[in-house]
Amino acid sequence: MGLNSNRVEDFSSHTGNTTVTTVKVSTEIPPEAATMEIHKVCMPPKKTTLQKLKHRVSDIFFPDDPLHGFKNQTWCKKLVLGVKSFFPICQWGLEYSPQLFRSDIISGLTIASLAIPQGISYAKLANLPPIVGLYSSFVPPLIYSVLGSSRHLAVGPVSIASLVMGTMLSGSVSPTDDPILYLQLAFTATFFAGVFHASLGLLRLGFVIDFLSKATLLGFMAGAAVIVSLQQLKGLLGIVHFTNKMQIIPVLTSVLEHKHEWSWQTIVMGFGFLFFMLAARHISMKKPKLFWVSAAAPLTSVILSTILVFCIRSKAHGISHIGHLQKGLNPPSLNMLYFSGQHLALAIKTGIVTGILSLTEGIAVGRTFASLKNYQVDGNKEMIAIGLMNMAGSCTSCYVTTGSFSRSAVNYNAGAQTAVSNIVLASAVLVTLLFLMPLFYYTPNFILAAIIITAVVGLIDYQGAYKLWKVDKLDFLACISSFFGVLFISVPLGLAIAVGVSVFKILLHVTRPNTVVLGNIPRTQIYQNLHRYKEASRVPSFLILAVESPIYFANATYLQERMLRWIREEEDWITENHESTLKCIIIDMTAVTAIDTSGIDMLCELRKMLEKRSLQLVLVNPVGSVMEKLHHSETLVTFGTSSVYLTVGEAVGDISASWKPQP
Amino acid sequence: MGLNSNRVEDFSSHTGNTTVTTVKVSTEIPPEAATMEIHKVCMPPKKTTLQKLKHRVSDIFFPDDPLHGFKNQTWCKKLVLGVKSFFPICQWGLEYSPQLFRSDIISGLTIASLAIPQGISYAKLANLPPIVGLYSSFVPPLIYSVLGSSRHLAVGPVSIASLVMGTMLSGSVSPTDDPILYLQLAFTATFFAGVFHASLGLLRLGFVIDFLSKATLLGFMAGAAVIVSLQQLKGLLGIVHFTNKMQIIPVLTSVLEHKHEWSWQTIVMGFGFLFFMLAARHISMKKPKLFWVSAAAPLTSVILSTILVFCIRSKAHGISHIGHLQKGLNPPSLNMLYFSGQHLALAIKTGIVTGILSLTEGIAVGRTFASLKNYQVDGNKEMIAIGLMNMAGSCTSCYVTTGSFSRSAVNYNAGAQTAVSNIVLASAVLVTLLFLMPLFYYTPNFILAAIIITAVVGLIDYQGAYKLWKVDKLDFLACISSFFGVLFISVPLGLAIAVGVSVFKILLHVTRPNTVVLGNIPRTQIYQNLHRYKEASRVPSFLILAVESPIYFANATYLQERMLRWIREEEDWITENHESTLKCIIIDMTAVTAIDTSGIDMLCELRKMLEKRSLQLVLVNPVGSVMEKLHHSETLVTFGTSSVYLTVGEAVGDISASWKPQP
Repeated sequence: MGLNSNRVEDFSSHTGNTTVTTVKVSTEIPPEAATMEIHKVCMPPKKTTLQKLKHRVSDIFFPDDPLHGFKNQTWCKKLVLGVKSFFPICQWGLEYSPQLFRSDIISGLTIASLAIPQGISYAKLANLPPIVGLYSSFVPPLIYSVLGSSRHLAVGPVSIASLVMGTMLSGSVSPTDDPILYLQLAFTATFFAGVFHASLGLLRLGFVIDFLSKATLLGFMAGAAVIVSLQQLKGLLGIVHFTNKMQIIPVLTSVLEHKHEWSWQTIVMGFGFLFFMLAARHISMKKPKLFWVSAAAPLTSVILSTILVFCIRSKAHGISHIGHLQKGLNPPSLNMLYFSGQHLALAIKTGIVTGILSLTEGIAVGRTFASLKNYQVDGNKEMIAIGLMNMAGSCTSCYVTTGSFSRSAVNYNAGAQTAVSNIVLASAVLVTLLFLMPLFYYTPNFILAAIIITAVVGLIDYQGAYKLWKVDKLDFLACISSFFGVLFISVPLGLAIAVGVSVFKILLHVTRPNTVVLGNIPRTQIYQNLHRYKEASRVPSFLILAVESPIYFANATYLQERMLRWIREEEDWITENHESTLKCIIIDMTAVTAIDTSGIDMLCELRKMLEKRSLQLVLVNPVGSVMEKLHHSETLVTFGTSSVYLTVGEAVGDISASWKPQP
Repeated sequence: MGLNSNRVEDFSSHTGNTTVTTVKVSTEIPPEAATMEIHKVCMPPKKTTLQKLKHRVSDIFFPDDPLHGFKNQTWCKKLVLGVKSFFPICQWGLEYSPQLFRSDIISGLTIASLAIPQGISYAKLANLPPIVGLYSSFVPPLIYSVLGSSRHLAVGPVSIASLVMGTMLSGSVSPTDDPILYLQLAFTATFFAGVFHASLGLLRLGFVIDFLSKATLLGFMAGAAVIVSLQQLKGLLGIVHFTNKMQIIPVLTSVLEHKHEWSWQTIVMGFGFLFFMLAARHISMKKPKLFWVSAAAPLTSVILSTILVFCIRSKAHGISHIGHLQKGLNPPSLNMLYFSGQHLALAIKTGIVTGILSLTEGIAVGRTFASLKNYQVDGNKEMIAIGLMNMAGSCTSCYVTTGSFSRSAVNYNAGAQTAVSNIVLASAVLVTLLFLMPLFYYTPNFILAAIIITAVVGLIDYQGAYKLWKVDKLDFLACISSFFGVLFISVPLGLAIAVGVSVFKILLHVTRPNTVVLGNIPRTQIYQNLHRYKEASRVPSFLILAVESPIYFANATYLQERMLRWIREEEDWITENHESTLKCIIIDMTAVTAIDTSGIDMLCELRKMLEKRSLQLVLVNPVGSVMEKLHHSETLVTFGTSSVYLTVGEAVGDISASWKPQP
């Protein structure tokens, strides 16, 4: 701690209690002004427990005051507003115009060309029959277009949720040995995911998904992308026997162990198309106007590769292809939901995990594009929409769907204006389901693998990870622990570890809060960190400490120890430098935004200990809730109301004035 | 929000930007002074990542700077200090005097008269042979007297740890069917509890026990006391067949189902002695000087009841008594430690749970009496002492021991001066073990039950619970959830629920932080909560928001929504009242003690959204770490350095000055 040689002079200029300059200063500031300057610390307005509870509940569950538009309206108007708010289609549908439809039809067809091959690929990722991916691109977009409030969200299956569902279910039930049970569990998990979404929305608990921080998701997505890409080596290399496990080591082992199954034709064509699609993606990223290059690449690749395989079908038996696909619309699947039996817990767990992940993606995507076009998306309402869409989906042979990031970006770039683009998408899928299914007979599996890889490599955001490292090391830790957790342990555990790290970060900050010593900035009433502001100088006989955290059971002991250490160090410094003795400790409570009973006990105990050492303890600017608790616990009585000040400046001025010998 | 009619006038007096008073004010404050008043927000001193890590680690693990006494000392002196610090006996032993010894011998004998019957009773509570309780009152106090730094801690078995050990072990292994295995597991659990204590101390992770808040412990202890008291009905009513379960319902069912086993002689004598001991306790509580009444009551009761049972032994066969106890010192039990096999996990789990509980009690008791006599107890050093004492204990037929609250209080009141009172206690137990064991043959079990009940009813602190309710409703919730968790579910689960509630409380505060609107207190530079300080008035064209929490991933979305709502409400209010339009949002970041990458993204996004609405966003007084992160993430560049001010007053003054038409 640096010694500030002119601190006495600085200090005297605004409080006037040092012996040398007393006369000069006291003539400047009339005593009336000095006494007037002391402001009382108010108690917050009185409220009953019930009022407080009501206020707290409304702040927890209704921070956005969702009914504010309904105030001061007639009943009839309220009803109309209610319908409009539940069915956003009623809101924008009235103003729909041919111009908008032109934009929507172009964007709808563009995302359809992406959604059809991706739907087939993602269903394979979830170990489901490819056609389920197409079913899932038909019903959910229709429902979302009626209920959803985002104008750019393109709905359908997504890679992460497909991957997680595939991993979690195939850990217990084999999709090849018991395909019916596997399908039942997938629909049941979808149903529970929908119930989970809708109930989060209805109970306004949307903040649950906030616990998946961006840092966590960054690591999780990158880990999942690596695993998924490696798994696709099965299709790209033409391997027949492959592991079901999802950790990096068994997957790599499996790739190398089945070297004799590698098929050179598959490899050549697979990597060729993969390179083509990656190049197309690269072009679109460099020039966003050329978004259609990457949007059209998958369908083009599917068509080209199918034709190619059809032509050489007699020569290349080693190339596996999709085979026969059932024509026709989504069959009902309500009878396949599975509400009892030994696998129910697995279905619920899978539903909740995929539900959290799909919701996080859907909400984040919706918010991103809404903020680009400057409109608001209500998170809780979106959750209800996504939930109903999945519940309906589970009854019509669909698996978990949400707003996909890649397709929504294409939708946005293709100029989508309203949710009608989702209706166009569904119509295109309808045509495909009814008439075009036989065309996919010769579509090779390697092209599906290449499509998946192209989609997921975009999830690896190493620049984002570098930025995390630069800005916040603990966020980076959360990121890499979810990355390695997913790679080496398992998807749900990796996620749990990452959430654990994030929560630990919050707790660490609370358990070991910062305390700083404040000094006065000369000729002002500003008190700032002595170690940060060089111009700040110590105030003789005072030690001013600012506590930068709520005082809780988890940090009360630490804070007491730390404050006693500050006092000890200050006293040592004073002895070394022969300064005036310490008489008063001021605790600046501005940043102590809450206190609990352990914290209050700590303050009382600290006061007692300091009293025995003839040191005064003064609190400055406790916030409303802290003041209230100090009052209820009768701490204010033991401290004396004169020990609580509104600002540090007033405390210093008043206390040092009281030390002056009475005339 | 109340309308403050004179806000324009108030405001003009210190910033001078309203049209009416511009001329007057601008002549008062020369432009030089106005520009001089703006202070730059400093960056904290630059540190490398390694330095930061070092600083953070030292703050997490060494908040008390344990080596501060070793600085600037010769090697020889450092060695002496080191030995003294590891063996506190070397510190006080040198100054030991006959006067001190007189006090210690009195207090030592007093606690021995309490410790011997309690030791036997608590061992029964843990389903262990009664003699193990005596063994545990011999070796551990001796070791603690050498290593421990508290002068008043009376070491031995305690009720809570005994109860929890009994519950957890007898859930898997029956103490009657397999007594050897049970004993092995108890010693092993004790060993692991010791390892756990010592490693917490060595790794300086003592703050782990801080997560058991006082509120949680209050509820937990009360719940345990109720369960233990009800379990003692077995002894008090003379029931032979009794449940091993620890929940309230099976215990009460068991009491009522075995009504035919109730023995009236046992009931009369048991309740008689219970009443006597409770009365003695009541007297000592009313008059602390008569502490010896309650201290002597258990031994008196044991002696009286033993004589009574001896006299009527031929008539009352229904009264169960202790029976034969082995004479002699602690046998070694190193060979009974159990480091492999199916029950190892149980032993480790039991060791950790009892370890946490015994440590919490020991540290809390040590701190309480240290603060009464104004000396310091080093938590981490105490943990090492308690750990070594338990590890040694597990090799000499002792089970988990720690500082007991009731016996330490008696020790303190009886005038103990140093840890020699523990040596006196051990000597008294030694004499008992060697010569007096046959005297306990006829000691009835009901007296042990009565002793336990007397000891545990003191743990029920309903006044404390009422105070929690009055001061902090969430603390009260943690308290009752641990109470009912212990009563109805199980001891470890009850504890886990209560810790969960406490952690949830911290997270809730972080997830839904408070935001307040600030106003200016006329004729000052103080800005305070408009809803709390009636004298505070709005500043026209400004909305000043204070965020009362770190900005994290868990609250970033909420804070954005909440701030947008404040802005919307302010704009509505302005439209209604025809006030000057909103131009600038000031966020007071004084209480934002940390920020993460999600928080930074939120601020940037908020700024973009407000910019589109032609609103300026300004940050005030970010703390050091926040400023650093804003800098590293290049947010300061996008915000512009002119958007960060040191105080709200300076921000308001400078910005409103910039709005004035240029001359």
